Amino acid sequence: MRSIGDAAYLDVDLTKGTVTARVLPESIYRLYPGGSALATYLLLQEMPAGADPLGPDNILVCAVSPLANLPIAGISRMTIAAKSPLTGAIGDSQSGGYFPAELKKAGWDAILVRGRSERPVYLAIHNDKADLRPADHLWGKITGEALDAIHAEFDPKAEVIQIGPAGENLVRFAAVISMLNRANGRTGMGAVMGAKQLKAIAVRGTKRAHLVDPEGVKALASSITARLKENPEVTGLGKYGTAGAVNAQNEAGGLPTRAFQTGHFTTAEKISGETMYDTILKERDTCYSCAVKCKRVVAVDGRVDPKYGGPEYETIATFGSYCGIDDLTAVAEANQLCNMYGLDTISCGATVAFAMEMVEKGILTAADTGDPDLKWGNAAAMLRLVKRIAHREFIGDLLAEGTARAARQLGRGAEQYVVAVKGNDLPAHMPRVKRSLALIYAVNPFGADHQSSEHDFVTAFPMDHWMRKPLNQVGQFPMMDATELSLDKVRFALVTQQFYSITDTLGLCQFVWGPAWQVFGPNDVVALLKAAYGWDCSLFELMQAGERRINLMKVFNVREGLTRADDRLPDRLFEAIPDGPSRGLKVTRAELEAALDAYYAMAGWNQAGVPTGGKLDALQLSWAKTLLPTV
Amino acid sequence: MRSIGDAAYLDVDLTKGTVTARVLPESIYRLYPGGSALATYLLLQEMPAGADPLGPDNILVCAVSPLANLPIAGISRMTIAAKSPLTGAIGDSQSGGYFPAELKKAGWDAILVRGRSERPVYLAIHNDKADLRPADHLWGKITGEALDAIHAEFDPKAEVIQIGPAGENLVRFAAVISMLNRANGRTGMGAVMGAKQLKAIAVRGTKRAHLVDPEGVKALASSITARLKENPEVTGLGKYGTAGAVNAQNEAGGLPTRAFQTGHFTTAEKISGETMYDTILKERDTCYSCAVKCKRVVAVDGRVDPKYGGPEYETIATFGSYCGIDDLTAVAEANQLCNMYGLDTISCGATVAFAMEMVEKGILTAADTGDPDLKWGNAAAMLRLVKRIAHREFIGDLLAEGTARAARQLGRGAEQYVVAVKGNDLPAHMPRVKRSLALIYAVNPFGADHQSSEHDFVTAFPMDHWMRKPLNQVGQFPMMDATELSLDKVRFALVTQQFYSITDTLGLCQFVWGPAWQVFGPNDVVALLKAAYGWDCSLFELMQAGERRINLMKVFNVREGLTRADDRLPDRLFEAIPDGPSRGLKVTRAELEAALDAYYAMAGWNQAGVPTGGKLDALQLSWAKTLLPTV
Repeated sequence: MRSIGDAAYLDVDLTKGTVTARVLPESIYRLYPGGSALATYLLLQEMPAGADPLGPDNILVCAVSPLANLPIAGISRMTIAAKSPLTGAIGDSQSGGYFPAELKKAGWDAILVRGRSERPVYLAIHNDKADLRPADHLWGKITGEALDAIHAEFDPKAEVIQIGPAGENLVRFAAVISMLNRANGRTGMGAVMGAKQLKAIAVRGTKRAHLVDPEGVKALASSITARLKENPEVTGLGKYGTAGAVNAQNEAGGLPTRAFQTGHFTTAEKISGETMYDTILKERDTCYSCAVKCKRVVAVDGRVDPKYGGPEYETIATFGSYCGIDDLTAVAEANQLCNMYGLDTISCGATVAFAMEMVEKGILTAADTGDPDLKWGNAAAMLRLVKRIAHREFIGDLLAEGTARAARQLGRGAEQYVVAVKGNDLPAHMPRVKRSLALIYAVNPFGADHQSSEHDFVTAFPMDHWMRKPLNQVGQFPMMDATELSLDKVRFALVTQQFYSITDTLGLCQFVWGPAWQVFGPNDVVALLKAAYGWDCSLFELMQAGERRINLMKVFNVREGLTRADDRLPDRLFEAIPDGPSRGLKVTRAELEAALDAYYAMAGWNQAGVPTGGKLDALQLSWAKTLLPTV
Repeated sequence: MRSIGDAAYLDVDLTKGTVTARVLPESIYRLYPGGSALATYLLLQEMPAGADPLGPDNILVCAVSPLANLPIAGISRMTIAAKSPLTGAIGDSQSGGYFPAELKKAGWDAILVRGRSERPVYLAIHNDKADLRPADHLWGKITGEALDAIHAEFDPKAEVIQIGPAGENLVRFAAVISMLNRANGRTGMGAVMGAKQLKAIAVRGTKRAHLVDPEGVKALASSITARLKENPEVTGLGKYGTAGAVNAQNEAGGLPTRAFQTGHFTTAEKISGETMYDTILKERDTCYSCAVKCKRVVAVDGRVDPKYGGPEYETIATFGSYCGIDDLTAVAEANQLCNMYGLDTISCGATVAFAMEMVEKGILTAADTGDPDLKWGNAAAMLRLVKRIAHREFIGDLLAEGTARAARQLGRGAEQYVVAVKGNDLPAHMPRVKRSLALIYAVNPFGADHQSSEHDFVTAFPMDHWMRKPLNQVGQFPMMDATELSLDKVRFALVTQQFYSITDTLGLCQFVWGPAWQVFGPNDVVALLKAAYGWDCSLFELMQAGERRINLMKVFNVREGLTRADDRLPDRLFEAIPDGPSRGLKVTRAELEAALDAYYAMAGWNQAGVPTGGKLDALQLSWAKTLLPTV
């Protein structure tokens, strides 16, 4: 008999063609309460060590927030995790939209996919019913067409996550797309689905939330919503969306430009959120139950269809400044291509930029690339290359392997120009400016990530007063010193990483729940979990869950053979920024090594970066000790 | 300019005869927010390594709760800490009453005492004014007489903490007494005052609380008080007080009897809280702003004066069952003697029991003791011995050194019968029955203590769901298995120790704030700190503060030369309990060593029990690393 606090998941064996409902008891679920923690737990339990990421032994898990179906802003999110074909480490990606709530309404907290189907299939879920259906007719289709077909043949109201041709073609940074305009983008989860011949998962859920205290949830929802609407820090995001960051980053010298060669892009204004708002923005979109509406919808007649959404800040940077491109329409078109073909916009843009730098450095020639126009600032060549990557055509076949693998295959000194950690391309935040990111980019188990910790530009942080400096003269929290990776900053990085680890576990949108903690925040989550599940947990318990997830991910990586040597930064970050507001800033190798020493020690890991037995015991992960190599 | 969140303390130099007001900035205070954490911090900052506990270099700190003056139950408490003359380790003791609130109302968060006065003195504080006054005329007086004298000459409304003749005579377990009936009892803080020739501290405070949000505090106070009054778990303590534990402990075989030889005392009923209630209880007393009234006031014509209060559970056990005595009036009289002379009732009763066992074992003879009646069960001899200890007369002079030193001096195999950890006699809870206490008794920095962690008989615990087992059939939390010191129980001990470390830091009464967390608890404290000081802290920050205090205490001990070998239990606990409900239970040496291994590892300490640099960094105690010996 399943109780309210238990988790239910579908165990899909593509090799056998079976779908089995399973229950994870509350006693386990509360240790790994949803999202990334639950996905990592299941992955580590079920995937044999050394699995080929593109083979049948890899496991893919989709896991939603335990609160995903509640009528509250910013809690309808989902993690997709698997061993990453891009990095060989744990893969992890997040997205919002409407799929997570729909899956939860169908009664499921997670989906585990194992094996490999002989033929393309998709998984169709209608509440308790779930079955695998042929997808031969969908294979090769872009996302817009496949979505229409699934809506037509399964349920017009179904929410769908799917891969596009890029995933089918095993592009190592292929994404999983939902609603045509959201992506579980990072670390190549789309390639894992492609390798398994799983085109899509469609779900229709009509169940009402089964809650311990429905009135309590309702009251909290009203209270949180009211506070949210009054909070300009959150609602302010609505106007320009994440694209509002373009100008701010550029002014700080933190807008990665020409593959991180510099942090200032002279014509950034042309690709800014403000310019988008004034020109191609058609409307604003939202995720389930969210009033913020940060999502962009853009339209350009004949070139950009609004159904594919609009570019986020990261996408603008990677296809824009990373490539020296200031053509906003071209950026929006690249965004559309990625959503049609199922590509991670960050890695895809970074890969195009890498190719452009290869040309600049003479490592690739026009003969190699098949495109004499492929150089900094050329939007048309950028768009051509995106399509070639998706289809693995010409040089796109090499680049579809990701920058790190491509550079290794190229030789000729190409590797020094790879701007990635563990093979995962750097998101559009500059570690030479936000120094704590240098550390987090290095240590984050799934490679460089910008949403796994608080950045240096912290305005307020709920967990620990001591991570910020005293109020300045005008009563604001000044940003931390950008030019040092001090012991305080290492601790700041570690603790905020643990907090953000909760957000990716409980499926909290960081744009909603991150900045506004004084208005609503962790204590509301504690109250929600109590009202929804009767869990009498505490912020302490949640912080432990966050730390538990990070340690579990680390155990996964150690088991897969990663070492301290994989917690390293690309060469580029050790070069001084040559111009702009952040001119002269660089990370030093000694600084990074000292920070790694300190981070590992503070984390309760040994100096090889492996969690100690005591730390695993303290986190109730004693079972995971057996997964580590004996020293 | 002092701000609301800063701490203010008096720095008293008895050698120089000076009293200096000092401010500790909020930036430091929040790391060590009051009570034991603040006291330990100041002690470690100010006391040179290797100080003689009874010499002028020792430092004594009184530190109150940052909330001590608020009209709320269970937050008016104070720590007294110093290097312990009983243990050579950190000394730490807690008490409630009215002194803490009065000190805070005078504007002070702590008093630091250094040096040694040439003549007996007392410190008289009236709000901002503080001066040292002669106490020659008070020296040698019992507490009741000294209190009257201070009230007459200084201020009749002054609250006073003082030592009695025992402290003057440097009895190593002398207590500091307030209101004649409360004690900072443990670890010999009274002897430290005696050695410094500081008879008393008297304070009169008339300032109103200076709060950031007075209305917010008022609302919280009303809300907490209302919830408290409705909570039978808390208010229920009022009827029988802590003495209500006698029968319950005895029924579980956990009432230490005849120096822990067994856990069942056949006539325990005669010294129970219920019997007290029916016979000698005169009224119930309370601490500042508390409606629980758990404090006993007993009266027996011609023998027990109600102004000296009444015995708590620990006192009943140590003078009762520890000694095989079932005479409640005699126990009450022993309690009175301890409050008159200034003795820790736990160590004093345990020391009498030790002496009785020495007689039983033939290690002491009637000629040695000067009292042929000194044997199990003899109340008159017990009372005689208490007086002799206070005055260091006859065998009392040896026993005033504490059981551990006395046994070493006795030789003849006496040491095997010492029931103490680090020289601190075991409180009246049975580690063979409540197994997690075996570990905490061993590792607690100031020796065996029963209020430094949650016991195995946990009914509910706020911090972490995972520390308890699932609800049983009747919806209650079953007690943990008493017969194993499992990895789970080690973790339970560690985490609850961190939580109780907060209570002794923020000055929270564990009887009020311990059991009722679902009604009011940690989140109320977070809210109170916000309303009172504007501190936007969190439960996570508080838990870190609790862990920080424990690590700081450990650093103190390491600096004083203590090692893993000091984290050991007395031989008695490795003997099976011979009879009663807990018959056969014992701790094994292998079990304890394994638990120590696990505890250290989980705590982030090395296997020698020394905090790692990484743990100290993580707790913002990097400065303390220099105090540790280099390995």
